[in-house]
Amino acid sequence: MKLYHAKGSPNSRRVRILIAEKGLDIEFVPVDLGSKEQFSDAYRAINPRVVVPTLVLDDGTVIGEVPAIQRYLDEAYPDLPLLGVTPKEKAVIAMWDRRVEAEGFASVMDAIRNTVAGLKDRAISGPHAYEQIPALAERSKKRLGNFYGDLEARLKEAPFVAGEAFSVADITALVTVDFATNGIAMPIPEDATATKAWYEKVAARPSATA
Amino acid sequence: MKLYHAKGSPNSRRVRILIAEKGLDIEFVPVDLGSKEQFSDAYRAINPRVVVPTLVLDDGTVIGEVPAIQRYLDEAYPDLPLLGVTPKEKAVIAMWDRRVEAEGFASVMDAIRNTVAGLKDRAISGPHAYEQIPALAERSKKRLGNFYGDLEARLKEAPFVAGEAFSVADITALVTVDFATNGIAMPIPEDATATKAWYEKVAARPSATA
Repeated sequence: MKLYHAKGSPNSRRVRILIAEKGLDIEFVPVDLGSKEQFSDAYRAINPRVVVPTLVLDDGTVIGEVPAIQRYLDEAYPDLPLLGVTPKEKAVIAMWDRRVEAEGFASVMDAIRNTVAGLKDRAISGPHAYEQIPALAERSKKRLGNFYGDLEARLKEAPFVAGEAFSVADITALVTVDFATNGIAMPIPEDATATKAWYEKVAARPSATA
Repeated sequence: MKLYHAKGSPNSRRVRILIAEKGLDIEFVPVDLGSKEQFSDAYRAINPRVVVPTLVLDDGTVIGEVPAIQRYLDEAYPDLPLLGVTPKEKAVIAMWDRRVEAEGFASVMDAIRNTVAGLKDRAISGPHAYEQIPALAERSKKRLGNFYGDLEARLKEAPFVAGEAFSVADITALVTVDFATNGIAMPIPEDATATKAWYEKVAARPSATA
């Protein structure tokens, strides 16, 4: 099994942290986004969506899309589950993870891709060209602000994003915070004390360096 | 178990079709979007995200977000699986379903919510107000066009979106096509013969009327 990834890719990091948490032994194959290796014929043959990460199983099956890769790894290696065990746990974790991704992670991504000069006509990752929309970047920053407010309310009532236990929703939220802090200078708001306490806890886990 | 839904809501329909396919006996509770019932105190107490659909389990657990609801139902009632059985099947179906949703379904939603007069300042569903961005509606239509092209290529190589069997990815794609046809007058392109043949097949299933 091989994971094609890029060191600086937040989506790749979401999978790397899950792998580190579960202690899985998976071969990492770097894809150099700086030299646009994801658009090479060789990589396009692996994942025609030309994005990282991509998981390739030993039988050649290609799995793209972060939540699908995470789901495969958690189902195939059920020790130390991060996506839940019972149907109810799986659904509740999936619900929170999706909210964090749509409202937090995707907001940071949209804010960056719709403004950065090097991504002109690459406002959406994938095989098709899309022009940047600066107004969308601004709206996405507003959305991230609302995400931070909602996350604070949630972490005042539960120790982790999806409830009592650390889960993939915490991984997505941790990567979102770091992405927002480093990518668009929007760290956790000063007054978000529950979020800051949660962040200290999850960022201190050994997996966070993955 | 109760499903709060709205007849005209494409996201509600995604869950209703899955329920019909699996033959589940679930109480449907209508939410009148026309009179903005989703913003009522009563509904806000059920789902603070003020969107439909919402599944409420008999123990009071609230599950929002379509893929999370679908996941719960498919895991809790494993007969007639629509999200896969093995870890590999689950991941491959999740991958295709997510692509259809992000590139197809969400494109139609963005095209509508960023232009319709009645949704001014409601460009994103949920508890927060966001202004409309007409340029995003235009870009989303372009994205839907690319989605149709990619779907045609996929359905030339496989009978169903995720492979050999009907799955939740077909439900998402069917609802996307109907939503695009009725909502923004973008039906399946004339020359997309594989997609048209697939559509005839899936739209003829009894579940499609749900």
